[in-house]
Amino acid sequence: MSHADLNQDFRHWMTSTQQQCEEALAFFLPAGDVIPAKLHEAMRYAALDGGKRVRPLLVFAAGRLFDAPAEVLARAACALEMIHAYSLVHDDMPCMDDDALRRGKPTVHVKYDEATALLVGDALQAQAFLVLSEGEGDPAARLAMLRLLAQAAGSTGMCGGQAIDLASVGLALTIEQLEQMHRLKTGALLRASVLLGAMSGKTLDDDEIAALDAYASAIGLAFQVVDDVLDATADSATLGKTAGKDAADNKPTYVSLLGLSASQELAQKLCKDAHAALLPFGEKAHMLRSLADLIVQRKA
Amino acid sequence: MSHADLNQDFRHWMTSTQQQCEEALAFFLPAGDVIPAKLHEAMRYAALDGGKRVRPLLVFAAGRLFDAPAEVLARAACALEMIHAYSLVHDDMPCMDDDALRRGKPTVHVKYDEATALLVGDALQAQAFLVLSEGEGDPAARLAMLRLLAQAAGSTGMCGGQAIDLASVGLALTIEQLEQMHRLKTGALLRASVLLGAMSGKTLDDDEIAALDAYASAIGLAFQVVDDVLDATADSATLGKTAGKDAADNKPTYVSLLGLSASQELAQKLCKDAHAALLPFGEKAHMLRSLADLIVQRKA
Repeated sequence: MSHADLNQDFRHWMTSTQQQCEEALAFFLPAGDVIPAKLHEAMRYAALDGGKRVRPLLVFAAGRLFDAPAEVLARAACALEMIHAYSLVHDDMPCMDDDALRRGKPTVHVKYDEATALLVGDALQAQAFLVLSEGEGDPAARLAMLRLLAQAAGSTGMCGGQAIDLASVGLALTIEQLEQMHRLKTGALLRASVLLGAMSGKTLDDDEIAALDAYASAIGLAFQVVDDVLDATADSATLGKTAGKDAADNKPTYVSLLGLSASQELAQKLCKDAHAALLPFGEKAHMLRSLADLIVQRKA
Repeated sequence: MSHADLNQDFRHWMTSTQQQCEEALAFFLPAGDVIPAKLHEAMRYAALDGGKRVRPLLVFAAGRLFDAPAEVLARAACALEMIHAYSLVHDDMPCMDDDALRRGKPTVHVKYDEATALLVGDALQAQAFLVLSEGEGDPAARLAMLRLLAQAAGSTGMCGGQAIDLASVGLALTIEQLEQMHRLKTGALLRASVLLGAMSGKTLDDDEIAALDAYASAIGLAFQVVDDVLDATADSATLGKTAGKDAADNKPTYVSLLGLSASQELAQKLCKDAHAALLPFGEKAHMLRSLADLIVQRKA
């Protein structure tokens, strides 16, 4: 298969996986007319029809390594996307980042109100665990997946990263401290996406976990470095959210610590690291490889 | 065994179960010096050293029906108490009830700040699912417990009840609408406490679920009726929270709909219903019976 074919193959796979994920989310969220209707409408507003679906794409790409069943992958992908969506809703609230625009639409507390936004986030988190706890398959494997999701979402994962982020506003972080913050804030959920996708297919051995960890850690950091580069260089319309906000809020970023061109070089290096980590998986890893490329080359 | 002995037996069991629950919570929450330390300190502030531990008491009392192992019960009890604690932290925030006092102490957003309160609630919810997903025992049974907890906590359980509560401020609810709101807002988690305790011992058959549902539904409503009576009659120091707040906020209550003495009679009737539902379980249900009495007789 030539490089051009792989690329076209990847683009086709990506579009169809995003579509599949959208349909699964629409199915796994309570319908907008179920009581309490306003809450369910707002949950759907927060989670549907938006975003690049990076976490679901990682789940499905990693699922290909071990031929995981589509239904288990869809549940894992939706659970991760619900956790991600809830974190955005809460992050955007006035007491956190106070942002009015997300994915090109008014944020939930602007469209509805703050109390609804708080409940939407809380209910989306519970829904994530509900979706992952239902369905067919080996209960012990599913339990291990729930454990990993809870750890990645909680105080030593995503929430912990947000707490460190909050505490770091206006502080002169070292590059190591910045890296640790992002490893928790966004890295934990990206790592969980890769591992949950693979675990949907089989119980992983230590070597497999180590290789997937190395891949996830590289793309997790690359994702953040590119985010900082885009925040410094793109406009709000392209990003679908307020650009230049981190600098305005005096938050430490890769660009503020390393400069623009060194940040771009770092992203390229991390992409190579991600590719290297996938070598043991051979041809079956090609969607994961292409996703690493996509994360580094994205424009929004 | 005489009635007086049963009473003393119950009081001894209650004190020792509350103590056991406090120790288990302290163990299952990340230590206050684990990074991010401020978040973990605040999670412990929110969950430890306070409250009547009604949900854990229900878990352990229901666990006695089928001789459930103590470790499984402790995990279920802590998970429920973490969900309950997170809901209080978020409920107290300015965009919800805006309350400064809880369990006789400053609320989390007053003691720390709003952003920390938001993250404490989010992280406590994840921690609840983490604690219940770990430990020994049959994975299929544990998975069923996680499913029940997620359903009870989410948009058709506790969060849904809060959404209905929010939407009902200033409205003239019927007694049926008020009941439906409370069945979700507090009833769902109390029901989950009873069922998770019993499920810690064995897989329940339909008759057992129906009997425990009838018990849980009666004490759930009784709990709320007594709450409304206390809110109308007790002072803030006794309650450990601001008294008379529901009336001041123009929220519908049993007292405002039925009057004080009819509300007190309703609580007594619900207590009898709860006792009747427990008949099939005989002597093993005596802690559940005493808890129903306690819920109706409590003064705070």
